[in-house]
Amino acid sequence: MIQFQCDYNQTCHPAILDALRVIGMEQNVGYGCDLYCEQARSAIKSAINRPDADVHFLVGGTQANATVISSVLRPYQGVLSADSGHINVHETGAIEHSGHKVLALHATNGKITAQQIQQAVDAHSADEGPEHCVQPGMVYISFPTEVGTIYSLSELEAIQTVCHTNHLPLFIDGARLGYGLCSPQCDVALTDIARLADVFYIGGTKVGAMMGEAVVITAADLKPHFRYHIKQNGGMLAKGWLLGVQFLTLFTDNLYLRIAKNAIEQAMRLKQALISKGYTLYADSPTNQQFVILTNEQAQSLSSQFLFERWATVDATHVAVRFCTSWATTASDVDTLIAAL
Amino acid sequence: MIQFQCDYNQTCHPAILDALRVIGMEQNVGYGCDLYCEQARSAIKSAINRPDADVHFLVGGTQANATVISSVLRPYQGVLSADSGHINVHETGAIEHSGHKVLALHATNGKITAQQIQQAVDAHSADEGPEHCVQPGMVYISFPTEVGTIYSLSELEAIQTVCHTNHLPLFIDGARLGYGLCSPQCDVALTDIARLADVFYIGGTKVGAMMGEAVVITAADLKPHFRYHIKQNGGMLAKGWLLGVQFLTLFTDNLYLRIAKNAIEQAMRLKQALISKGYTLYADSPTNQQFVILTNEQAQSLSSQFLFERWATVDATHVAVRFCTSWATTASDVDTLIAAL
Amino acid sequence: MIQFQCDYNQTCHPAILDALRVIGMEQNVGYGCDLYCEQARSAIKSAINRPDADVHFLVGGTQANATVISSVLRPYQGVLSADSGHINVHETGAIEHSGHKVLALHATNGKITAQQIQQAVDAHSADEGPEHCVQPGMVYISFPTEVGTIYSLSELEAIQTVCHTNHLPLFIDGARLGYGLCSPQCDVALTDIARLADVFYIGGTKVGAMMGEAVVITAADLKPHFRYHIKQNGGMLAKGWLLGVQFLTLFTDNLYLRIAKNAIEQAMRLKQALISKGYTLYADSPTNQQFVILTNEQAQSLSSQFLFERWATVDATHVAVRFCTSWATTASDVDTLIAAL
Amino acid sequence: MIQFQCDYNQTCHPAILDALRVIGMEQNVGYGCDLYCEQARSAIKSAINRPDADVHFLVGGTQANATVISSVLRPYQGVLSADSGHINVHETGAIEHSGHKVLALHATNGKITAQQIQQAVDAHSADEGPEHCVQPGMVYISFPTEVGTIYSLSELEAIQTVCHTNHLPLFIDGARLGYGLCSPQCDVALTDIARLADVFYIGGTKVGAMMGEAVVITAADLKPHFRYHIKQNGGMLAKGWLLGVQFLTLFTDNLYLRIAKNAIEQAMRLKQALISKGYTLYADSPTNQQFVILTNEQAQSLSSQFLFERWATVDATHVAVRFCTSWATTASDVDTLIAAL
Repeated sequence: MIQFQCDYNQTCHPAILDALRVIGMEQNVGYGCDLYCEQARSAIKSAINRPDADVHFLVGGTQANATVISSVLRPYQGVLSADSGHINVHETGAIEHSGHKVLALHATNGKITAQQIQQAVDAHSADEGPEHCVQPGMVYISFPTEVGTIYSLSELEAIQTVCHTNHLPLFIDGARLGYGLCSPQCDVALTDIARLADVFYIGGTKVGAMMGEAVVITAADLKPHFRYHIKQNGGMLAKGWLLGVQFLTLFTDNLYLRIAKNAIEQAMRLKQALISKGYTLYADSPTNQQFVILTNEQAQSLSSQFLFERWATVDATHVAVRFCTSWATTASDVDTLIAAL
Repeated sequence: MIQFQCDYNQTCHPAILDALRVIGMEQNVGYGCDLYCEQARSAIKSAINRPDADVHFLVGGTQANATVISSVLRPYQGVLSADSGHINVHETGAIEHSGHKVLALHATNGKITAQQIQQAVDAHSADEGPEHCVQPGMVYISFPTEVGTIYSLSELEAIQTVCHTNHLPLFIDGARLGYGLCSPQCDVALTDIARLADVFYIGGTKVGAMMGEAVVITAADLKPHFRYHIKQNGGMLAKGWLLGVQFLTLFTDNLYLRIAKNAIEQAMRLKQALISKGYTLYADSPTNQQFVILTNEQAQSLSSQFLFERWATVDATHVAVRFCTSWATTASDVDTLIAAL
Repeated sequence: MIQFQCDYNQTCHPAILDALRVIGMEQNVGYGCDLYCEQARSAIKSAINRPDADVHFLVGGTQANATVISSVLRPYQGVLSADSGHINVHETGAIEHSGHKVLALHATNGKITAQQIQQAVDAHSADEGPEHCVQPGMVYISFPTEVGTIYSLSELEAIQTVCHTNHLPLFIDGARLGYGLCSPQCDVALTDIARLADVFYIGGTKVGAMMGEAVVITAADLKPHFRYHIKQNGGMLAKGWLLGVQFLTLFTDNLYLRIAKNAIEQAMRLKQALISKGYTLYADSPTNQQFVILTNEQAQSLSSQFLFERWATVDATHVAVRFCTSWATTASDVDTLIAAL
Repeated sequence: MIQFQCDYNQTCHPAILDALRVIGMEQNVGYGCDLYCEQARSAIKSAINRPDADVHFLVGGTQANATVISSVLRPYQGVLSADSGHINVHETGAIEHSGHKVLALHATNGKITAQQIQQAVDAHSADEGPEHCVQPGMVYISFPTEVGTIYSLSELEAIQTVCHTNHLPLFIDGARLGYGLCSPQCDVALTDIARLADVFYIGGTKVGAMMGEAVVITAADLKPHFRYHIKQNGGMLAKGWLLGVQFLTLFTDNLYLRIAKNAIEQAMRLKQALISKGYTLYADSPTNQQFVILTNEQAQSLSSQFLFERWATVDATHVAVRFCTSWATTASDVDTLIAAL
């Protein structure tokens, strides 16, 4: 069975396991206060050109989202998000569990616009009794989005401007950040992300690491006491250097973006094959997630040889499915899939 | 200024103030354990024909909603509600504050259907990883709804059947219950509400009382320890007999429904006048809230003499407004409004 | 049965019921935005000599405590309190329900000291990994305390100094504030409370009102958006003028302190009688709560004629009980109790 | 610098890194649904002789504690715990963050007794208004405790009996479980833990794993929907097989207990040396944590060569410190420490 169902189905890049083997039985202090974490922080701050940033290593995405969002909001505030956003649909209400409403905006191709954000703020302000409603307190977007699309630099800048004007911190979920930045359609650089977001994270779990998300805080007022939030939310890894070593490896010699490229190259090969074979794309994704409409029979047939995700029912006889590539996807596996299509 | 902006703009029915005066300096035990509360509970249980019910008196609607819902749900569950439901838009995220997501369903005329509920449950069950999503844990509807509409008996019975089949407690917000039951279009009796809901409340604040909502729990498994929930949520009134006396008064000689009728009669007079004068109704409400589309000039002109609520912007030159009547609305005030229209 | 079990067993001062009767069927806007609330706010700000204060009317004490505390603290912070404090023992964990730990300090006669607060702060700061512990974020004291004692002005000033130095807002629970201020032992004035506390409340429920606590916020940074917190916590009374009228009445012609004095006078008569009859006091309270040790037989015998609270088991044959007086306690009822002792 | 400051300062047992290397680029499904997790669950269920148990793999201890406790309790309930318990002092209020009070009982040598639990339950039941207090809803103990002590089998059985009688689930925090079970003083077997606890966890982080705690649920009513709780609390590791592989390795050929023994042997060597050199022990621990009183000068001097934890200030000139051994501690490092003492 060849697996295309997600981009976190292989342990990690071999360089990471090597790095852990090198450490061996070395002793390190806990909770992210070790030298590897310190070096990884430096490497990241250098890569994003934000020497002033705070960098924290968390284990997973839901944890990172809930910790960041609950650290930013006041109790009566909610987070503006695409209705298709991960926090709104696939985190078992972790944000609500922390006391906050996800203020869902209708997404188009997984994205929301600066205008929608301004409208939400205006609608709240225009209310004669605004205290009866949840106050928009921050903005959450993902890059790439849940359906593999990416914001253009001008879209991001417009969002940042609206956020800045309305004093709404902008949080970018970068669980698949590498796959967005490597897309041929992408005109956004890592340094742009770090310049525009008040807080964001660089996803490791899906891009070469065993686990780990590097949360980067650039806004000065969001920095204090973040370690308390991490600990309270159960996200402070005892052996923090496990994350430090991984991110240090990924941010040495640009490994992070180099391996991300493989996912995009394989995804583009698959996408071209789908198009040339006459399949209808369900979404036009420039990143590592590809969505295509199959007949139920086609889907059934493919499932004997491949794992992939059934994304949505299209009609009685068709289904939209998702194929994911990753840093580890081989050309040969994609060839096999293309041949079977 | 004549006020039609809401149905809680006058203190209380005179009989209630009289009843409080009769008590005078009498001493009573606290927290709803007094004789008046006991008598009020009996009167309500008799009126709803549910001698097995538990009845608790809370002070307000948001408090009642948050207390009931958080008492029913497990942490990973959410409450299915119309997207226009009060808990979803006008309670400052009180439900999320208690840790739970409001699972909003698209409302039609303020109402949701049994089919929508079943679809939400089915969609959750069909998910290959349901634990990544909030589990539907109960259903919230309001009777009447936010836009004054009411469920028919068959609609309610269909909802109850779906709820029962899927083990979802059904909670009916009856903040304006009296105004629904008195509507000429209503084929639902108070005893039907008590038969179909697992928990509901009889609104006092908007129907003759100074304040107070009588929460009625009919489902056996929802009864235990509810007083702990009330206390924890800050809803246990020290001088509980204040609520007991009010509900005892309202449920003596059927006062509750008798005074509710006045609101409906005045609302129907207003509605007929609006129709006969050629106004376009914004919603077709059979209860005490009436919604009509005005030109901005009309709205501006009326606002010099009347208070009413601007409900929604229709277009650049028109606005939908809401006029509320109540148990206390005088025919003469409605005459004045009709004359001014 | 004559009731001494609490100080909230009678409806309200007659002047309040009169004031409500005068209003009659008058129409008022909701949620505390009416003229009576505005006038009551002015009267209170004048009485406390803080024209800059924000004043909000809530319905009950647990609600006021939970709303204020959760509005002040960040998620990782807790509230320093006497271990005997109401929030620590008698509010069903309402503070924890809002996500915060009560950091209990050992109380002596119901009170904590400036030194204890400083030690708690120092202990937290000295920790090598403070982010593993709850950070002290504010201080809660009650005046009078749960056992009827009162802080002296110098004690309060020392606490305020420590709070100020350590950036800890000071919150004073004044559920029985009137009874403290009227005590012959009290050297603290209402203006001192308003000068020293960052936020406090003036209890109405126990001092003449039907219900209601006037939350006063003097610290500028605690004022914004407090109405959102009230609403989210279910504490925003629809007919807010009910509270406005009551506090306006209580703060007209100094009624609040005048009626509080009666409770103290009757309590002191009872205390003197207990002492002269040779009873052992369980606590030396200068306010309206009196604590005395009885034999089990004495307690049993008194309970046929009086309601009072069993406070603590002293030993196999003795029990400590509490007798409360209030603004409404009659000399004759106290005479009857004294005679029965 | 030789590190004795904790038992989680080395990456993992070499067999684990080997096992991960063997997997290499193998593809696995996520979220703990892979074959390694399945095999690890089987191995654990076999080792604990509870084929009926549910086993879940979480990443860390604070996460495991908060997830388990909030999954068990109803909103108005709290967890009984030693006042020195990890959840009460070193988890930044994670339990309160989930809405629940830690009901702290005074610990003796880190332990609480069956009698204390019964008294807490009785005190709650005896209250005339129990709904004003947090209801004890479960019991949390740790094995070994925070100060390295262990419960005897008879103590555990007495606690279990009281828990069972009062319908209080018993939760055993086994972050250092291996080190307790291997102690020469221990008369409790792993199967006893699994027989007596309703839910417990087997700590991996501190006993040979990179990270991971195996939560074992034996009580049938605590099993349903636990994966929802894990996900909502951010504890569901995407690449779950990382935990499966580790626990499978630890529970193959009894590796878990075999490596735990080393920690105890080295700790006992240290303890004997401390005693024979005339040091005063701060606590009499039979496990891998040793506590000793040093003069400030001694502590200062040792700190140039060793990392250890300052546990408590004894007096102006003495400090209690903690030395931890682990599965990885070498005899030679302990020799160096003994020589330096």
